Amino acid sequence: MYSVSVRDHMMIAHSLKGDVFGPAQRLHGATYVVDVEFRRRALDADGLVVDIGRASDTLRQVLADLNYRNLDELPAFAGKNTTTEVLARVVFDGLVSALRGGELGPTASGVEQVRVTLRESHVASASFDGQVDDTP
Amino acid sequence: MYSVSVRDHMMIAHSLKGDVFGPAQRLHGATYVVDVEFRRRALDADGLVVDIGRASDTLRQVLADLNYRNLDELPAFAGKNTTTEVLARVVFDGLVSALRGGELGPTASGVEQVRVTLRESHVASASFDGQVDDTP
Amino acid sequence: MYSVSVRDHMMIAHSLKGDVFGPAQRLHGATYVVDVEFRRRALDADGLVVDIGRASDTLRQVLADLNYRNLDELPAFAGKNTTTEVLARVVFDGLVSALRGGELGPTASGVEQVRVTLRESHVASASFDGQVDDTP
Amino acid sequence: MYSVSVRDHMMIAHSLKGDVFGPAQRLHGATYVVDVEFRRRALDADGLVVDIGRASDTLRQVLADLNYRNLDELPAFAGKNTTTEVLARVVFDGLVSALRGGELGPTASGVEQVRVTLRESHVASASFDGQVDDTP
Amino acid sequence: MYSVSVRDHMMIAHSLKGDVFGPAQRLHGATYVVDVEFRRRALDADGLVVDIGRASDTLRQVLADLNYRNLDELPAFAGKNTTTEVLARVVFDGLVSALRGGELGPTASGVEQVRVTLRESHVASASFDGQVDDTP
Amino acid sequence: MYSVSVRDHMMIAHSLKGDVFGPAQRLHGATYVVDVEFRRRALDADGLVVDIGRASDTLRQVLADLNYRNLDELPAFAGKNTTTEVLARVVFDGLVSALRGGELGPTASGVEQVRVTLRESHVASASFDGQVDDTP
Repeated sequence: MYSVSVRDHMMIAHSLKGDVFGPAQRLHGATYVVDVEFRRRALDADGLVVDIGRASDTLRQVLADLNYRNLDELPAFAGKNTTTEVLARVVFDGLVSALRGGELGPTASGVEQVRVTLRESHVASASFDGQVDDTP
Repeated sequence: MYSVSVRDHMMIAHSLKGDVFGPAQRLHGATYVVDVEFRRRALDADGLVVDIGRASDTLRQVLADLNYRNLDELPAFAGKNTTTEVLARVVFDGLVSALRGGELGPTASGVEQVRVTLRESHVASASFDGQVDDTP
Repeated sequence: MYSVSVRDHMMIAHSLKGDVFGPAQRLHGATYVVDVEFRRRALDADGLVVDIGRASDTLRQVLADLNYRNLDELPAFAGKNTTTEVLARVVFDGLVSALRGGELGPTASGVEQVRVTLRESHVASASFDGQVDDTP
Repeated sequence: MYSVSVRDHMMIAHSLKGDVFGPAQRLHGATYVVDVEFRRRALDADGLVVDIGRASDTLRQVLADLNYRNLDELPAFAGKNTTTEVLARVVFDGLVSALRGGELGPTASGVEQVRVTLRESHVASASFDGQVDDTP
Repeated sequence: MYSVSVRDHMMIAHSLKGDVFGPAQRLHGATYVVDVEFRRRALDADGLVVDIGRASDTLRQVLADLNYRNLDELPAFAGKNTTTEVLARVVFDGLVSALRGGELGPTASGVEQVRVTLRESHVASASFDGQVDDTP
Repeated sequence: MYSVSVRDHMMIAHSLKGDVFGPAQRLHGATYVVDVEFRRRALDADGLVVDIGRASDTLRQVLADLNYRNLDELPAFAGKNTTTEVLARVVFDGLVSALRGGELGPTASGVEQVRVTLRESHVASASFDGQVDDTP
């Protein structure tokens, strides 16, 4: 299996509901350094998994909906906890949608799996790793 | 698959038996920066793989038995080589035991896989990655 | 000159006032990975700049006033921009106060300089570096 | 599954053919920080996946054919694009060949999978991950 | 002293003249991860050393002249060795010129010192650190 | 001021004397990732601070006396605490001695300052930074 990974980041505010979150129930924030890995079994005719430039641009666009936002105010997250795990899945879904929409170029249709990792500090991170075909 | 990772470290002394180890047959030591990844297919009702706070506390407790020790003197390792690979498995087993004992909270029973990585320098590391259910 | 450095982190929400800040004028947040370097010309009788354990504990206490907070709501920052630079100075002042209060131990009075660096992402950081004696 | 990872680097010049590469069609270069992960289900009698020293030496030898070279001038790459993905596979093939040739020692025959990651900057990398047995 | 740091990278080909360079006398290449630190004693009215966005944009422009180039073909370097040290100085000079030209904004005139670090691998880097006023 | 930095590591066992060290009074160990920065105002005729290859070789030789050792058994440290600060100074002294002995090459006599940093974990480090001329 081949893979290509790109990195970007976003800075958001949010609060989390539930005793398990302790002080994180208060409105606070996070920088998420976001690593995305695209995987496929065979390379395209140019020798690529995806064009790194287009992958980086697409990641930036997917993050733009969240970046510099208070997630507590976004309708998409009403009634949901925006844990790092949940946000990893949101970024994954955005990237799969972009892949299907052709935003990563015509040969990117060969991408089979995507892994999204959000690093919230030097000691903690969360990720979602899935098959493109299994995603609704 | 979702995952959450936490990091801690331990500092130990030991020696290794066998010509293959060269100068590492002498009593020396290591800092292991320890990364643990917990994985499961579906999140719990709070949107979590595991509570990061509890995961960090549990990791610290598992490492406490080894931290600031000369492993050559611990009965558990008598007649065994405490290679980085072997120690990764020891930490894995300790975490699986803690998962089963409920130390990571009631919903952590959904964790299916655990990966433990010990980084011994900026250029070398070892890991053990296993199914919780396959562990005796 | 000898130095010792310790690392911790905090997660905060805030907004910034002024056109120069663009989208960061909206309420958002950040993880700051905080590195503190203590410097002195001669070591104490134990061979230390500061006790790393006490230094880590003190750093955690200084950050506790800010961690998991919306800085826009803290009276201490009323009318001020909580830029990364400003926050580095706030942490510096807290550490100098702790040094003078003896919280880092009796021999820590030999510390001459402190540098505080706040890393807000994988590509940006800010710091304040000052003489302990020059601080009001 | 157990794994051991080692790191080295190489510095090469090359150019890439195809509009998708934009300015990278010009002769330029890269440092690739190379991480290799060797994986197997059971450790050898010494408690090892592979001898880290031999693994590091073998990686250096495999990279030596490419290091400090203009890849555009190497016959092995005539008519091919030396993308990061392609180079990850070249390093993988070299390591599998070394494993089969016994260069990593007699017990290294137990290695089942190898992953090679080439980090070309702080924001981009590519890898190839394969079964030793599936490699021609 | 306050500081702000930003990071970017460039990918170049070059060769070095002189027996001391060994195999690096051949045409090869490098990725330089570039860290720039801007320093000043007092912050501007917004609480900034420099606007991080403008600093990042300026750094990208300074690197654009070198990025994806074979430095051996650039007239600016005719008869000179483009060592990492020399390139750190070139980037420093470009940034000082941009500071004086007002490209980092009106208040950036308060910047007193700039440090440019080029990381060429995980084990080696070079830097130039100078006073803005001392630069011709 | 120009600088060049190189990195290597060593793995040692030791114990520390004094109540301040808590559990580190027991025999334990550490990996020290060692960064050395050489600084001078003007480059040599080749455009170098020091030859990175020779600097790396010299660092390896200086660390060889300590690597894979129990420091408690070395006569050089009898009656002394081998804190990270003290070891940073030991490595500094070894490098200054090598500089004076010509081991880094004839033009390395222009090096004015050396900084040695020992990273003992992902959260703690110590360093010694000194003038070559001030060292006995």
